[in-house]
Amino acid sequence: MRVYFTFEPRPDLREPLVAEFPEVDFVFEKGISEEQLRAADILVTYGEDLTDQLIEVAERLQWIFVASAGMEKMPAEAIAARNIYVSNVRGIHKKPMTESVLAHILALKRGLPAIYEQQSRTEWNKRLQLTELNGSKALILGPGAIGQEIGRLLQAFGVHTIGINNSGTASSHMNETYPITELIHHLPKADIIISILPSTDKTRYLLDESYFEAMKDSAIFLNFGRGDLVAESVLIDALQKNKIAHAVLDVFEEEPLSEKSPLWQLSNATISPHISSHSSRYVERSLAIFKPSLQAWLKGERELENEVDILRGY
Amino acid sequence: MRVYFTFEPRPDLREPLVAEFPEVDFVFEKGISEEQLRAADILVTYGEDLTDQLIEVAERLQWIFVASAGMEKMPAEAIAARNIYVSNVRGIHKKPMTESVLAHILALKRGLPAIYEQQSRTEWNKRLQLTELNGSKALILGPGAIGQEIGRLLQAFGVHTIGINNSGTASSHMNETYPITELIHHLPKADIIISILPSTDKTRYLLDESYFEAMKDSAIFLNFGRGDLVAESVLIDALQKNKIAHAVLDVFEEEPLSEKSPLWQLSNATISPHISSHSSRYVERSLAIFKPSLQAWLKGERELENEVDILRGY
Repeated sequence: MRVYFTFEPRPDLREPLVAEFPEVDFVFEKGISEEQLRAADILVTYGEDLTDQLIEVAERLQWIFVASAGMEKMPAEAIAARNIYVSNVRGIHKKPMTESVLAHILALKRGLPAIYEQQSRTEWNKRLQLTELNGSKALILGPGAIGQEIGRLLQAFGVHTIGINNSGTASSHMNETYPITELIHHLPKADIIISILPSTDKTRYLLDESYFEAMKDSAIFLNFGRGDLVAESVLIDALQKNKIAHAVLDVFEEEPLSEKSPLWQLSNATISPHISSHSSRYVERSLAIFKPSLQAWLKGERELENEVDILRGY
Repeated sequence: MRVYFTFEPRPDLREPLVAEFPEVDFVFEKGISEEQLRAADILVTYGEDLTDQLIEVAERLQWIFVASAGMEKMPAEAIAARNIYVSNVRGIHKKPMTESVLAHILALKRGLPAIYEQQSRTEWNKRLQLTELNGSKALILGPGAIGQEIGRLLQAFGVHTIGINNSGTASSHMNETYPITELIHHLPKADIIISILPSTDKTRYLLDESYFEAMKDSAIFLNFGRGDLVAESVLIDALQKNKIAHAVLDVFEEEPLSEKSPLWQLSNATISPHISSHSSRYVERSLAIFKPSLQAWLKGERELENEVDILRGY
């Protein structure tokens, strides 16, 4: 059994893996090679290095483990035609993204940007406007796995959580849940509005001016989903007119954000370069999902964690 | 019944208080006046405006509600001699301080200082070293009310908490607890070390060089207790030699921190000007403690929340 990684985990992660599966022949090589692919039974990839032609070369290949949640760059039809099993690391972003969301919210409530700035000026000044997270209300747009984890931690901080999803059916770690069609009616009560919505026909440019009008002027808006939830011009206008207190943006209509965008200069905007899910522990987490799957695969099981219907894309 | 406040709560806080107690005659005046003091049955103060002589003037005074946790500036013997009841707002710092501690830890793990700096340079750069809080180990020096609240939230983030107190007896929200005499043996396993220790004979200059030697070079050290836990020179040496990864300091050997201190310039130090307990909701919280106490007092009860033995100081 040959397992071919098209990336190289650090020795401290690679060695225990090799030791745990003495019956498996592992190859770790950065970048994809036809020669290695030809001999591989299982392929472990970030999912951006495959083509129709490479799938043809991979004649022994039975399972592709994609160490990514995005399937957009996979040659789906070629894989489906060959009936190659695909699984991925869905959910891997949950913890790092949630920690980023909480970090940004707490940093704003507890004055960290001002503390850092004062330090850079060697300035001891106790007159900062600090406030508290506990006792506030948060609206979570998209209470899926990530949204629920955000909800769980916000509730631990004493925050009342309101989930907004398609159906309005109750969702874990949400004190209340409403359908997205009613979103605008719930905005006026939210101190914090967090979106982790994907880009769909229902969400694209959903937040027009009227939504920012409906928000509290003290509200913090965080977009960690997709940039096309709101037009950049609408966001800039809302921030310039102080319709809300602050926006933390990890995603943008166009990425990278143009150097010319006025967003960079707004003191009530935080620009995070789409890194909220990044983590030095990414490969460690991927292997923690891969190992039990490989155990199961070797026993002949063919229902692995995070199975992907490659034609559907998830 | 006359209640005299030597500070003025905002109208939105003051008015509901007055409305709730129609039988009480309230006076709100910034700064202390002998005339008002002479007529007061109950005094509400931040505890820094009293003297022996003023206590003598306050002939009707039966209860002092101190909207502070520090009793250092109170004329203790004069108050005790008159047998005036004292209560305070002990515990009021718990939530804001805990949120500050979590804010600083999460900000460092999730790269917020670098994100803010990049924005100031209009720089889109995804190559930041972000890591995660979950799965780490935290040592909490002083697991009292604040330390336990920090422990509770760290545990919600999936952190293993180790409490260090005088006795080593188990403490809430701590996975393990050890006596402070054994502290040095537990430092090597901690990713995060948080002190909220008071200044006592046992804690003063406790953390000498050997303690920083014992810490992981990847450790984050947070001092939110008292500055004399560690000499500034020891801290500077540890940071300059990268014996630890970062220090977040809210308290200092001398406050304000001298402009000449090298700490200001260290990229692995965060200087917070002793504001981690500050909150725009301080008066709101104080009144939330005062109101039920006043209700009880009016009914003749004399065992109120946060009673203070003024001679002991707590």
